[in-house]
Amino acid sequence: MVEDKAGENKSSKSALKKEAKKAEKAAKKAEHKQSNAENQPAATPEVDVSIGKYGNLPVITSEKKDVERKFTYVLDLNKTLSGQTVWVRARLHTSRARGKQCFIVLRQREYTVQALLNVSEAVSKPMVKFSSSIPKESIVDVEARVSEVPNSIASCSQQDVELIVSQLWVVSQSAAQLPLQLEDASRPEKPEDEGLNIRVNQDTRLDNRILDLRTPTNQAIYRLEAGVCRLFRDVLTKKGFVEIHTPKIISAASEGGANVFTVSYFKGSAYLAQSPQLYKQMAIAADFDKVFTVGAVFRAEDSNTHRHLTEFVGLDLEMAFNFHYHEVMLTIGNLFTEMFKGLRDEYKNEISIINQQYPAEPFTFLDPPLVLEYDEGRKMLAEAGVEVGAEEDLSTPAEKLLGRLVKAKFDTDFYILDKFPLAVRPFYTMPDPNNPKYSNSYDMFMRGEEILSGAQRIHDPVLLTERAKHHEIDISKIAAYIDAFKYGCPPHAGGGIGLERVVMLYLGLDNIRKTSMFPRDPKRVTP
Amino acid sequence: MVEDKAGENKSSKSALKKEAKKAEKAAKKAEHKQSNAENQPAATPEVDVSIGKYGNLPVITSEKKDVERKFTYVLDLNKTLSGQTVWVRARLHTSRARGKQCFIVLRQREYTVQALLNVSEAVSKPMVKFSSSIPKESIVDVEARVSEVPNSIASCSQQDVELIVSQLWVVSQSAAQLPLQLEDASRPEKPEDEGLNIRVNQDTRLDNRILDLRTPTNQAIYRLEAGVCRLFRDVLTKKGFVEIHTPKIISAASEGGANVFTVSYFKGSAYLAQSPQLYKQMAIAADFDKVFTVGAVFRAEDSNTHRHLTEFVGLDLEMAFNFHYHEVMLTIGNLFTEMFKGLRDEYKNEISIINQQYPAEPFTFLDPPLVLEYDEGRKMLAEAGVEVGAEEDLSTPAEKLLGRLVKAKFDTDFYILDKFPLAVRPFYTMPDPNNPKYSNSYDMFMRGEEILSGAQRIHDPVLLTERAKHHEIDISKIAAYIDAFKYGCPPHAGGGIGLERVVMLYLGLDNIRKTSMFPRDPKRVTP
Repeated sequence: MVEDKAGENKSSKSALKKEAKKAEKAAKKAEHKQSNAENQPAATPEVDVSIGKYGNLPVITSEKKDVERKFTYVLDLNKTLSGQTVWVRARLHTSRARGKQCFIVLRQREYTVQALLNVSEAVSKPMVKFSSSIPKESIVDVEARVSEVPNSIASCSQQDVELIVSQLWVVSQSAAQLPLQLEDASRPEKPEDEGLNIRVNQDTRLDNRILDLRTPTNQAIYRLEAGVCRLFRDVLTKKGFVEIHTPKIISAASEGGANVFTVSYFKGSAYLAQSPQLYKQMAIAADFDKVFTVGAVFRAEDSNTHRHLTEFVGLDLEMAFNFHYHEVMLTIGNLFTEMFKGLRDEYKNEISIINQQYPAEPFTFLDPPLVLEYDEGRKMLAEAGVEVGAEEDLSTPAEKLLGRLVKAKFDTDFYILDKFPLAVRPFYTMPDPNNPKYSNSYDMFMRGEEILSGAQRIHDPVLLTERAKHHEIDISKIAAYIDAFKYGCPPHAGGGIGLERVVMLYLGLDNIRKTSMFPRDPKRVTP
Repeated sequence: MVEDKAGENKSSKSALKKEAKKAEKAAKKAEHKQSNAENQPAATPEVDVSIGKYGNLPVITSEKKDVERKFTYVLDLNKTLSGQTVWVRARLHTSRARGKQCFIVLRQREYTVQALLNVSEAVSKPMVKFSSSIPKESIVDVEARVSEVPNSIASCSQQDVELIVSQLWVVSQSAAQLPLQLEDASRPEKPEDEGLNIRVNQDTRLDNRILDLRTPTNQAIYRLEAGVCRLFRDVLTKKGFVEIHTPKIISAASEGGANVFTVSYFKGSAYLAQSPQLYKQMAIAADFDKVFTVGAVFRAEDSNTHRHLTEFVGLDLEMAFNFHYHEVMLTIGNLFTEMFKGLRDEYKNEISIINQQYPAEPFTFLDPPLVLEYDEGRKMLAEAGVEVGAEEDLSTPAEKLLGRLVKAKFDTDFYILDKFPLAVRPFYTMPDPNNPKYSNSYDMFMRGEEILSGAQRIHDPVLLTERAKHHEIDISKIAAYIDAFKYGCPPHAGGGIGLERVVMLYLGLDNIRKTSMFPRDPKRVTP
């Protein structure tokens, strides 16, 4: 083992020497090309001992293929590498000159490490000066010796070591003026120090999303969001679901026609789908049995709230069942359980990084999940002094209160509310055969906010027509929908989940714009 | 083991008995409710010994939860179940009465089995008559004994057994008149019997997509398509890529403004994204390092060809690299190799079902994939008598010819063509530093058709501005794009893949409408 390591070091040292020569050449070339460029080491009367060890690299145009340099990840910089020479490509997070020294913090996604330049035999004054003048957020290549530190560095994620820099090259230079400071954007939001520290407001963040997304918190949020999608698909695929893709451009407004975006389509016009529901149901009528789809969903609602977007990512599923829609409802419930377990077990690190900036109680859930009937929910609310009529929907405040009551009683942030009043659900919802006031429909909640709405859909064209008439819907306008069930269709149920809401509520965040990488609302279509 | 099995049989028998009783009750109820309904066993003067064993079930409204009936999949019906009584829920594919018998073919997705009703002590004449009158495509519940057959049944997927029916219930009845026959839609396309058999044309299929999608071939195509998506994501996730979601509604036309759909957006207007490229690049500039996204892509091109859609599913990826764009190009090449291996190994059955209807040569590929330079491709074409200028793009016929030449020489249906002329690529493509006429860009081909176009993108705002000016692009209109690179950006490359094209070409199909579940073209926005 020891021999192997020595061997590795040797070969990596010779590679580094080669590299140093190459870099020197490149630097000279760069100097030649960009002799008038800013930040270029100025020609000094003294001999600069560090010439060829620092500067601006030319733009990487893939000129050379056989570069043998291996980069070490910032995450991997720790005591075990102590004494070794490494190359790191990272962002210059901050730099601070102090006399003959320059302290730099290098950042790579969620991880940071301190780097140090000291005027010495190998490091010239101009090199230190150059280092301190590199604009923050530039990408740099650093050659350095890993050095253990006596006192841990609290301001960096890598606290046990620092880097003693021997080469420093700018790979991609940032503009000197930043519209927001990463340090400000990364600052914890604690109510107690409100007003003491600079905050970056939501619009400034979103207007400069490229910078904002670089904070450790945002790096972690979008990695976790990718995890939610992956878990959703993996769990369902294992259960025999088939992924389908449904069209976003549709010929008729899917749900009643309100809140739909119009698209000009060649010489005519079309609409953007508000839900993939019809297509999921068609897939069921076409024998796919269990389907899911992940894709953009559009709502032309002029709602400027913390939880509405005009475009969001829908995680939708639909499933044929044999006898009872609970076969589907409990499949969805189990899907959530599996997702929550996956997040808890695989994203510990991300959750902890996010909690440092946005503190929240850990998300709790039961296995199997809690199922409450709507009437039980109403009773709990009534006991807390809030009356909800038997055929009335829950208001948002009532939903939130019920979430708190459920949490207090059952210690779960996730639950299923079953058997909603028929009167508050769409016409295609299957009525409860045992109580005509109720329906075979359910909502699911996270931290007291609805994240899924679903139901058994009417799969019989006669009953569907009857219910549509009862809702005073023009049958001729939904003929294509009704016809989907004309050639035999199994009983089925399903639901749709908003991805950004799930991530927001799982993490206990306060705004859906924190969990949509490029959010769209009535006032924002950029960047 | 034997004991266990016996136990299982016993309990399942008692469950079935219970079931039979329940079904009888249900049937009586159904009879009562729907006494005037069509296909209801008519009251005959003779006693019908099968009463309670057949009929139309009421619509399944989830009235009962504790139904213990277990269904057997058609796929699992084979000799090992011989002598056992099973319940099957499937479509009535065809039925044919012959004297005192009725032959039924039951279909479940890709699988079919023969079922037989014989007038006997247990099966009445009216029951056989009822059976033969059930409309094709209805969903039925069948109780039957599995019986080995002396001669294999060539017309069914389950060739060794048939079902001797003891109960037959209609769960969901199809309309009697079908706009297309599943048998016609499933018929192999062999050039030799052109004109002899009824075919279903593309538009009839698409107009009645719910029926068309029920053919074994379509069931297999969309299962395989789901597999392509899954493999794409799984391979990339293992390589450290992060899934992102990019907005479809954008404020400015992404690539030049031609061929873009306009959306009315509250009081203003917006566009549908033609590609997620800008957003993938922003994610790279925001330190996500390696990203992919799967989602709808919109092209307002009035192209009515076999391979164009106005909305398709883009499988897009983008990746930062250290020194050379081949780091990315070869990652994508390896992604394809892994996908092809996965399809070959995991979708044998689907491929064989599809090939029965649409015969095609098996897809061949090399590991690692073949990489040709554009100039080599030009030379091969020139040798075959087709001249392509050094700064000219390949025409579609030239592409196809080159595909055939490559296949003949290297025996691969997949290859990478590298170093396209700079003149034929978009302004943001990185020029080749070693030859200003060429660029760091590549296309990838399957069976001679392009399925991915990609390149190293210019990550330096100065060079990007210079190249845009060279292309006579109004800089003010792409300011937001250029600004994305202002705060430091690593060198990066990527590409975009059309899902439907990959599936079409992998399977050797002739039209992209065969691989889009609900295709959109200039003339079609329904269903």
